[in-house]
Amino acid sequence: MRTVVVRNIPRIAPEVAATLAGHGVSTVHEAQGRVGLLKTYMRPIWPGASVAGSAVTVLAQPGDNWMLHVAIEQCRPGDVLVVACTTDNTDGMFGDLLATSLKARGGIGLVIDAGCRDVRTLKEMDFPVWSRAISAKGTVKATLGSVNVPVVCAGALIRPGDAVVADDDGVVVVAHRDAVDVAAKADARAANEIAKRDRLASGELGLDLYQMRETLAAAGLEYLDDLPD
Amino acid sequence: MRTVVVRNIPRIAPEVAATLAGHGVSTVHEAQGRVGLLKTYMRPIWPGASVAGSAVTVLAQPGDNWMLHVAIEQCRPGDVLVVACTTDNTDGMFGDLLATSLKARGGIGLVIDAGCRDVRTLKEMDFPVWSRAISAKGTVKATLGSVNVPVVCAGALIRPGDAVVADDDGVVVVAHRDAVDVAAKADARAANEIAKRDRLASGELGLDLYQMRETLAAAGLEYLDDLPD
Amino acid sequence: MRTVVVRNIPRIAPEVAATLAGHGVSTVHEAQGRVGLLKTYMRPIWPGASVAGSAVTVLAQPGDNWMLHVAIEQCRPGDVLVVACTTDNTDGMFGDLLATSLKARGGIGLVIDAGCRDVRTLKEMDFPVWSRAISAKGTVKATLGSVNVPVVCAGALIRPGDAVVADDDGVVVVAHRDAVDVAAKADARAANEIAKRDRLASGELGLDLYQMRETLAAAGLEYLDDLPD
Amino acid sequence: MRTVVVRNIPRIAPEVAATLAGHGVSTVHEAQGRVGLLKTYMRPIWPGASVAGSAVTVLAQPGDNWMLHVAIEQCRPGDVLVVACTTDNTDGMFGDLLATSLKARGGIGLVIDAGCRDVRTLKEMDFPVWSRAISAKGTVKATLGSVNVPVVCAGALIRPGDAVVADDDGVVVVAHRDAVDVAAKADARAANEIAKRDRLASGELGLDLYQMRETLAAAGLEYLDDLPD
Amino acid sequence: MRTVVVRNIPRIAPEVAATLAGHGVSTVHEAQGRVGLLKTYMRPIWPGASVAGSAVTVLAQPGDNWMLHVAIEQCRPGDVLVVACTTDNTDGMFGDLLATSLKARGGIGLVIDAGCRDVRTLKEMDFPVWSRAISAKGTVKATLGSVNVPVVCAGALIRPGDAVVADDDGVVVVAHRDAVDVAAKADARAANEIAKRDRLASGELGLDLYQMRETLAAAGLEYLDDLPD
Amino acid sequence: MRTVVVRNIPRIAPEVAATLAGHGVSTVHEAQGRVGLLKTYMRPIWPGASVAGSAVTVLAQPGDNWMLHVAIEQCRPGDVLVVACTTDNTDGMFGDLLATSLKARGGIGLVIDAGCRDVRTLKEMDFPVWSRAISAKGTVKATLGSVNVPVVCAGALIRPGDAVVADDDGVVVVAHRDAVDVAAKADARAANEIAKRDRLASGELGLDLYQMRETLAAAGLEYLDDLPD
Repeated sequence: MRTVVVRNIPRIAPEVAATLAGHGVSTVHEAQGRVGLLKTYMRPIWPGASVAGSAVTVLAQPGDNWMLHVAIEQCRPGDVLVVACTTDNTDGMFGDLLATSLKARGGIGLVIDAGCRDVRTLKEMDFPVWSRAISAKGTVKATLGSVNVPVVCAGALIRPGDAVVADDDGVVVVAHRDAVDVAAKADARAANEIAKRDRLASGELGLDLYQMRETLAAAGLEYLDDLPD
Repeated sequence: MRTVVVRNIPRIAPEVAATLAGHGVSTVHEAQGRVGLLKTYMRPIWPGASVAGSAVTVLAQPGDNWMLHVAIEQCRPGDVLVVACTTDNTDGMFGDLLATSLKARGGIGLVIDAGCRDVRTLKEMDFPVWSRAISAKGTVKATLGSVNVPVVCAGALIRPGDAVVADDDGVVVVAHRDAVDVAAKADARAANEIAKRDRLASGELGLDLYQMRETLAAAGLEYLDDLPD
Repeated sequence: MRTVVVRNIPRIAPEVAATLAGHGVSTVHEAQGRVGLLKTYMRPIWPGASVAGSAVTVLAQPGDNWMLHVAIEQCRPGDVLVVACTTDNTDGMFGDLLATSLKARGGIGLVIDAGCRDVRTLKEMDFPVWSRAISAKGTVKATLGSVNVPVVCAGALIRPGDAVVADDDGVVVVAHRDAVDVAAKADARAANEIAKRDRLASGELGLDLYQMRETLAAAGLEYLDDLPD
Repeated sequence: MRTVVVRNIPRIAPEVAATLAGHGVSTVHEAQGRVGLLKTYMRPIWPGASVAGSAVTVLAQPGDNWMLHVAIEQCRPGDVLVVACTTDNTDGMFGDLLATSLKARGGIGLVIDAGCRDVRTLKEMDFPVWSRAISAKGTVKATLGSVNVPVVCAGALIRPGDAVVADDDGVVVVAHRDAVDVAAKADARAANEIAKRDRLASGELGLDLYQMRETLAAAGLEYLDDLPD
Repeated sequence: MRTVVVRNIPRIAPEVAATLAGHGVSTVHEAQGRVGLLKTYMRPIWPGASVAGSAVTVLAQPGDNWMLHVAIEQCRPGDVLVVACTTDNTDGMFGDLLATSLKARGGIGLVIDAGCRDVRTLKEMDFPVWSRAISAKGTVKATLGSVNVPVVCAGALIRPGDAVVADDDGVVVVAHRDAVDVAAKADARAANEIAKRDRLASGELGLDLYQMRETLAAAGLEYLDDLPD
Repeated sequence: MRTVVVRNIPRIAPEVAATLAGHGVSTVHEAQGRVGLLKTYMRPIWPGASVAGSAVTVLAQPGDNWMLHVAIEQCRPGDVLVVACTTDNTDGMFGDLLATSLKARGGIGLVIDAGCRDVRTLKEMDFPVWSRAISAKGTVKATLGSVNVPVVCAGALIRPGDAVVADDDGVVVVAHRDAVDVAAKADARAANEIAKRDRLASGELGLDLYQMRETLAAAGLEYLDDLPD
């Protein structure tokens, strides 16, 4: 494995990122055809955060956060740092000092397929993190990895410059070249949902709103008055 | 597997449901002899909620929420929708649109042995959900299941019309015919605990309150001044 | 297994405990050379709590909380009750009654490698618990265990009288005889971090602050302008 | 929870059991409409065993095998002992002595949602076990449970007298009253599969054998010569 | 998500596949710089198998094996079928009928990030499978997926035509364009290991063979005669 | 954490080790009062092996096997190498080269709370390993750990020189000073079991052999002819 740092990566336009963040993970995931979701073990370390930005990616060794320092230099305002590990690991690779440094570079969040620590301070700093674990276990700085190469993070392929969207529902990645299109589709989808929500709130059933009754009957669904013995 | 929807199910009386909700999961679980608890992986998606109601049950396929739309039509005010899956699955079968519809029918909560999404909106709606996962992954509407048949949900047998009680301690089911009796026992248990709590708060030891010293000695417990080498 | 209760154990001085609690789990773990951390599945039942105190230890059978009553008698103000189990178990061994009793003895928290219940009441009581699970499942009082013997709790060896530190980052144990020394090292470490934090916040990079550039180059890290095909 | 031993339970006819065992778990599961499968964590402790028999059920406490001794008295030739636990537990509740006793009563196998030990001896005895774990941890005999009541074992509802079928694919339960019917359906299914297997072995594609091409096209499947950029 | 079947994919030359299979997963993984390993939950359903071949990839829905039939038509002699799922799932998507069909097309093995069934028959057929679970649970044929698109399978990115190597140590993927190079490196590595193995077998220590003593001392390793108190 | 290698450790006498190995894990675990069992996730990489020997212990970093080379130099004939990790890790820290070296020193087995690789070769070498995972992922040699210090391995405290017993039932540790005593107790226990096994094999029930009937009745067990409605 060649260990490299790639300097030039594409970025998502701020207004596209804002649109994606506004719609949130579930709507964006639907809008792009239900691909790109990270495993559900990726959870926010505090509730209520919501971000979207360009991925600066890191491939790190288990228990080794050396490359995170390298990666932060490559970050610009609006970036989300994305850390994948060569092996399942929960060590606390990221804490308040790295967050201070990342924030100073304009980084807006962290997505890490490993552990995070200093949870209370990070919340006080209003710095959002999505991780697979919380762990006070610190890490060494002994083995190289790479920055801004394609990585598989929590089961999803993420390339540098892809849009990463994260909130209480989890984390989804949108390929760089699809981001504008997906943002538009998310707009359309959200507009469409407003009307549906009003109808459902008024008591109309999904069975009628989505015209399911005939299909259900054709598929063989039976209605019985009482449970058969 | 015959795929049916059963229309008529028994319901828990509102005052019995209120009693059960007031006592909460741990007390109700004790009151009925420590049966009926769902696996501990079932957690509230936001803390502080507490409900009790009649179960409308769904048996669904993994990644398929077709039957939830069918089930909502069968719900009445005070019902709790209970979703079991034929296979372990974490997809986000339920989100804000279904919650809007379920709430419009009077449904007061969801217990789902799968995933849930739109967590922030659900919290804003004050709609409580207990699930095994949070996932933005949407579902298809392709394969039938059943509504209001007995299901095994998170390890517990739940029949339509059973009382489902859920709070920060988890979820417990009370058989329909036992609900009145269990509510009464929970009342008695809670009354009994008040006196105990006062005595314990005043510094009396459980060893004395429960008269354990003799039994412990008989069982062979030794007191040593210091740890043997 | 001999079943004993040991009466005399060492205690951590209150000012040492206060220092350790003030620094928190991650700093203390670093200060003592990264040993003594409990597995990351040990989580607080409500966020924001932070304690440090002397361990009163319990070795219990799965699903049996008899020895907790025995242990509470041995607790003094400032103690943290630490419960290990002979087998992986998630039953709710501890609830509001035991908490009332433990608090009346001066106990300041619980660390339990099993389940806990009455979560909402415990939060209202402001009584902090770190556990592997939340479960309404009560326990029997049938089999003896021991109190104040060395135990392995969530993967860490804890001896009676050791300092136990717990917060949102997890739980760490400090050997009794090392506590004063570790507290001093944590003070030094924290002082050192303040300066670093200021420099990082001002935009200085970790790469420069920690003088990593030369080592990284020597290890073979390559900088590329663009991702190779 | 009332603790009872029920003496009279229905049994599966030996020839029906033989038919079910001959077809195996996957075919039987299909034949009854894909219900009744136990969770996939239930694995044989040695490969190659295959049994079907009438369930004698046990509901036990975690770490307590008292009721297994009680249950063995209720077993007759051809029975399969089925053990459920009130809580997730992996203790070794069953070993070579219990197997010797169960075998002496005519019991043909064990399905246990907990641990098993003495694996090598059990294999030498040719006594098959399906369990969630292998563990040398012995158990106490302190708390009552019940024998021959309905239990939820590894996620499936099993009633005393139900047919339990187990092999390398796992464990499935067939309700007592359905056993004859399911055996007949399994016969039919197996006959049908022989013809299909021959056609597939000769190179005919499932696409043609099952006439899927039109449905796939209607569902929108596109064939491309090359992967789009 | 567009649902497509791609017809033309590159293939690994038979002699390269033979070389990779001969060296096995651990050596190949080392030879390509320790990337491309699938998660360790991927295990052979019977021990002793060893294959290497070109990947024909499938992206399937949970509990739906429709696309496997589609994929088998695209297989040629020497191919390994690789199945990824949009969601974690353990259903038995593949059994003896599909294996018969795949074998008839020349397929030499299956790697599936889901469940497999008919384990005994597959072993009798000498057809190797690496899966995350064994499950009798059959699947529906209701929703489209894709064939021969890049997939993330058990945490690794696999493109159609990549070399997939699998044995008792797990599964590793080698990018198509790297396969010849990696095979050569594996040859070199294996040759190098023979000499080392002989020296180690004769009692020479790794400390001396790899000249570690000086580095260890420099890193601060201390030798003590006895454990300090 | 001071990083040390301790040269002098006690050893178990060969005849004591032979006795312990002969009785096996479950009997030894019982004989010493049911303590010292490692977590059940520790499984043999091939079935049928059985060893007992003196522990040479290693505390390693995740993904780093440097200290295993150091430890092998400390091994003598009859020793079992025991590897604990500072963090949960499944990397393949041990393969055929290390096994060759360890075997050349007289080491008789490995117990590792991490991963192992080259499984087929290890089986051909008849070298037994108990591990938490099988993984081809190799490790770095970058960070020091310690050799022959007390470690917590898979949840059990193991001191250098303790007796480690491992077979198909798992792994158990016996404190060095207790080994002779436990071996004697295991002899006694095994002798006692022979008589019991014969009586159980002849059809005598455990209920009578262990005289349980009266206690069960006193505890409140009820016998019913039929399941109550």
